[in-house]
Amino acid sequence: MHFTLTMPDWADEELRNLPASLPTVEDRMAAVIRFSRLNIEHDTGGPFDAGVFERDSGKPLMIGVNRVMAHQISSAHAEIMTLSLAQQMLGTYDLGGPSLPAYQFVVNWRPCAMCFGATLWSGIRSLVIAGSGPELEQITGFDEGPVHPEWKAELAKRGIELIEDVLKDEAMAVYRQFADSHAFIYNARLGNAT
Amino acid sequence: MHFTLTMPDWADEELRNLPASLPTVEDRMAAVIRFSRLNIEHDTGGPFDAGVFERDSGKPLMIGVNRVMAHQISSAHAEIMTLSLAQQMLGTYDLGGPSLPAYQFVVNWRPCAMCFGATLWSGIRSLVIAGSGPELEQITGFDEGPVHPEWKAELAKRGIELIEDVLKDEAMAVYRQFADSHAFIYNARLGNAT
Repeated sequence: MHFTLTMPDWADEELRNLPASLPTVEDRMAAVIRFSRLNIEHDTGGPFDAGVFERDSGKPLMIGVNRVMAHQISSAHAEIMTLSLAQQMLGTYDLGGPSLPAYQFVVNWRPCAMCFGATLWSGIRSLVIAGSGPELEQITGFDEGPVHPEWKAELAKRGIELIEDVLKDEAMAVYRQFADSHAFIYNARLGNAT
Repeated sequence: MHFTLTMPDWADEELRNLPASLPTVEDRMAAVIRFSRLNIEHDTGGPFDAGVFERDSGKPLMIGVNRVMAHQISSAHAEIMTLSLAQQMLGTYDLGGPSLPAYQFVVNWRPCAMCFGATLWSGIRSLVIAGSGPELEQITGFDEGPVHPEWKAELAKRGIELIEDVLKDEAMAVYRQFADSHAFIYNARLGNAT
């Protein structure tokens, strides 16, 4: 028994075309948000994306996209995809291992209840998010689940730096685009039915 | 880009040999604990295992084992393996979908912070655990992470039944076996070094 989770073909192409370094956290978040937009425009998954970068050099290691619907597997969130692919590339389940540079995890919103745990287990040293408020759920209707009330303290306890509110408006623009396109799809179906 | 998570060969064989039905929650937990013991005895992963069963008929759908070390992927916990394989078998990311029987998730301890989220997203209707106290961390040294303080209420809010303390002593016996075998491995290394 096995299961395989894939990235869409367009993402492989986009990954090859990334610059060798994305110096600032804004550069890195912009790349992640670009993937989130492409993922909904190609209809290959939800509007959630995540990237692993070398924190100090800005070298991109992996940007992964949400593949829940594509594979019909509920844990195929962008964070799980990205961390797993990054760990596979490096051959280690611990991205914070002693011989490795510090890795930074860049996500276009606060990770959900599951992915917050996955973040803690991955060995990343820094977490950059576009936002953490109720806007995501309000715009998209997605349930982010019961993230631990002391999530910031839990990150700090494990030595994981947190950088918040990076390109928040840009991230939210993609959620609005997603919500609008789904409204269109529902209307189209309704149109067929009447 | 893709990644593949596999079950060990012995587990495929064991799955084929499961009875058509495991009527009681104790029967189901005993099967899960058996897999957890075989996983450490075959050195194919950690002592954590999970099963998905039809709640009312007791038909086993999948029992999966921890594969973090085997694949060097930190999210390859038993719960993620099992839920993903079960969803792949049924072709749906929602095990609680309208045309499906109610599924029960049986785990040999309370799911960790990540897997608690994965449990909520999977669509299972019932969660059976061997225990939820500090014994697991005390015996094995594993970190279960910041599970939400209101985890029982969060399950109830989503209509997921919770059945606790099923074969707790039997589950803990495997954790002790794991801890003892690791003590032996460390001693062996120390022996080589001196």
